[in-house]
Amino acid sequence: MATEAQVITCKAAVAWEANKPLAIEDVLVAPPQAGEVRIKILFTALCHTDAYTWSGKDPEGLFPCILGHEAAGIVESVGEGVTEVQPGDHVIPCYQAECRECKFCKSGKTNLCGKVRAATGVGIMMNDRKSRFSINGKPIYHFMGTSTFSQYTVVHDVSVAKIDPKAPLEKVCLLGCGVATGLGAVWNTAKVEAGSIVAIFGLGTVGLAVAEGAKTAGASRIIGIDIDSKKFDVAKNFGVTEFVNPKDYEKPIQQVLVDLTDGGVDYSFECIGNVSVMRAALECCHKGWGTSVIVGVAASGQEISTRPFQLVTGRVWKGTAFGGFKSRSQVPWLVDKYMKKEIKVDEYITHNLTLGEINKGFDFMHEGSCLRCVLDTQV
Amino acid sequence: MATEAQVITCKAAVAWEANKPLAIEDVLVAPPQAGEVRIKILFTALCHTDAYTWSGKDPEGLFPCILGHEAAGIVESVGEGVTEVQPGDHVIPCYQAECRECKFCKSGKTNLCGKVRAATGVGIMMNDRKSRFSINGKPIYHFMGTSTFSQYTVVHDVSVAKIDPKAPLEKVCLLGCGVATGLGAVWNTAKVEAGSIVAIFGLGTVGLAVAEGAKTAGASRIIGIDIDSKKFDVAKNFGVTEFVNPKDYEKPIQQVLVDLTDGGVDYSFECIGNVSVMRAALECCHKGWGTSVIVGVAASGQEISTRPFQLVTGRVWKGTAFGGFKSRSQVPWLVDKYMKKEIKVDEYITHNLTLGEINKGFDFMHEGSCLRCVLDTQV
Repeated sequence: MATEAQVITCKAAVAWEANKPLAIEDVLVAPPQAGEVRIKILFTALCHTDAYTWSGKDPEGLFPCILGHEAAGIVESVGEGVTEVQPGDHVIPCYQAECRECKFCKSGKTNLCGKVRAATGVGIMMNDRKSRFSINGKPIYHFMGTSTFSQYTVVHDVSVAKIDPKAPLEKVCLLGCGVATGLGAVWNTAKVEAGSIVAIFGLGTVGLAVAEGAKTAGASRIIGIDIDSKKFDVAKNFGVTEFVNPKDYEKPIQQVLVDLTDGGVDYSFECIGNVSVMRAALECCHKGWGTSVIVGVAASGQEISTRPFQLVTGRVWKGTAFGGFKSRSQVPWLVDKYMKKEIKVDEYITHNLTLGEINKGFDFMHEGSCLRCVLDTQV
Repeated sequence: MATEAQVITCKAAVAWEANKPLAIEDVLVAPPQAGEVRIKILFTALCHTDAYTWSGKDPEGLFPCILGHEAAGIVESVGEGVTEVQPGDHVIPCYQAECRECKFCKSGKTNLCGKVRAATGVGIMMNDRKSRFSINGKPIYHFMGTSTFSQYTVVHDVSVAKIDPKAPLEKVCLLGCGVATGLGAVWNTAKVEAGSIVAIFGLGTVGLAVAEGAKTAGASRIIGIDIDSKKFDVAKNFGVTEFVNPKDYEKPIQQVLVDLTDGGVDYSFECIGNVSVMRAALECCHKGWGTSVIVGVAASGQEISTRPFQLVTGRVWKGTAFGGFKSRSQVPWLVDKYMKKEIKVDEYITHNLTLGEINKGFDFMHEGSCLRCVLDTQV
């Protein structure tokens, strides 16, 4: 390839500092080192986690950086020792790595991989503890080990899922975060059984993916809870059978749900990131067995609380990261399910823009009608 | 029987009001009504839950009442419709009922039975919503549906476990609460696997029963945590392999345990009832899979808290009541295990007194060297 082993200059949306508009810049992307993969990103979606770090509220956020973690592309080149992908492979970069060698990967109990976390957590690559991005010699930090708001990015090989080359990248990029997270929260973390009553707090992309996961698991009632009643019409298409707007009640929402369900729901999912809602989600669960799964990401420093009696009387409080999916092993399986029309993806995409319009995309995100906005990075 | 259908006058320790010494009184015990069983209590142990309600801190505590819930005795007579026990049967009264008919019992997911809770929670019997105890015509409230600090008591038939008549009642009375709770927390709620690392906060009777349960489950390390280092010598006999006294460290105890175990324990158990310790017990669990079980009962109104990140990164927070054991079905099984010497019971009994010495027994309870004090009620 003409670009292999060369520094590539390309366009990227750079967050120079917290809360300032992203700037489209010419960025230098160094070649991949040992165990690294350089990917030509074709499509990237916007997620609330990008917006959270961009806002400056994430104490681990580093600037300047290139955000973005829900994307799809084609391998441009690979570094020394990389065997599982090669140039031309269609891939989804995964912020949750899977090395298959660490204590976590070998445990059989979790999808959290520890191998590259110490580097990706501080915006650099593991090999030389430096960034592959620079502008005028100044390094630009990586983000979540993915940095997909760029025409090219470099990631660790343990963070690359090779997928069916026939899959439309402009759609399946969503399987890199939100849709996978919601489905996995139901299938892997909660393990919802047929006939269950499910409550979903927050009907954004993740909440709707939870609904779809619950529907395929055979849930008998899927109750969507959101303060924006307009979301119900869309939510029905994803499996939500009943809608509750907390604003319509004087009672605490957990009591509303307990009353609606003869004692509480079997499973609840918090898909917002609000610690008060996390408490309500736990407390609306049925005594004896109700399980609540935290899917949303709360702001730093915030805490959840409840009376221990809630747990002593049989409720279970859990959480999920990337829906419990092992990224390299299971993202390709999710893509296959999409190709077989067993899971929705297209329906979550409400906006399509170009990389140059990324700031407008974030404006859309904060509007109620936006689920996912996908950017074409190459135009 | 001479006493059948008669009011029985017998001795009982009455809590006339919160925090005043219990008084041994002549109490009238009415005959059992439909669905009720009158039991001659031979031995009763003292538990912290009795002391908690007696202290007046339990907002649901009612006075005057007859406390006590960990006991064994012989059925004296049965009310109409009672078929599963008959006079002369050896039994353990169970504060956690098991009706086998309610939504909870039929769920297959919990040992919490809902049938008589609405009556036992307010100190009365379900049939006529009155007490069977009185003194000079004044009703004395029941407690936890058991009230075993009395030579005779009346309980609902769904709260009576019929046991092997060869079992020594002065020992197996402990299977009515503390020992069963600890074993069940490990076997039923946490489901500890062989090779696991276990942390136990609080080395009283329940904590030691957790240790024994963990040992029989094949745990590789059983770390006991207590602020009284003298407890370690006894704890070794129950399976504790390492001892940690939080007072010996400047670091938070969760960090001490994470450091000691290369990332955290697989299972932790809070056996104290202290909400700060509950948080430490969760946070000392290993990222990705560590499960913490709340066994201790916190004071009313207190709350647990943590950062949701603890759950999102794979820790699970649960609780247990009576160790998840179905009382009528499984207490007899525990007694059988004791008779086959598969579980300890005798070793928890450090003091033996008479019913008349009950106040002294509670004084012992608050001393560090006391595990269980068993009262002979008939002398």
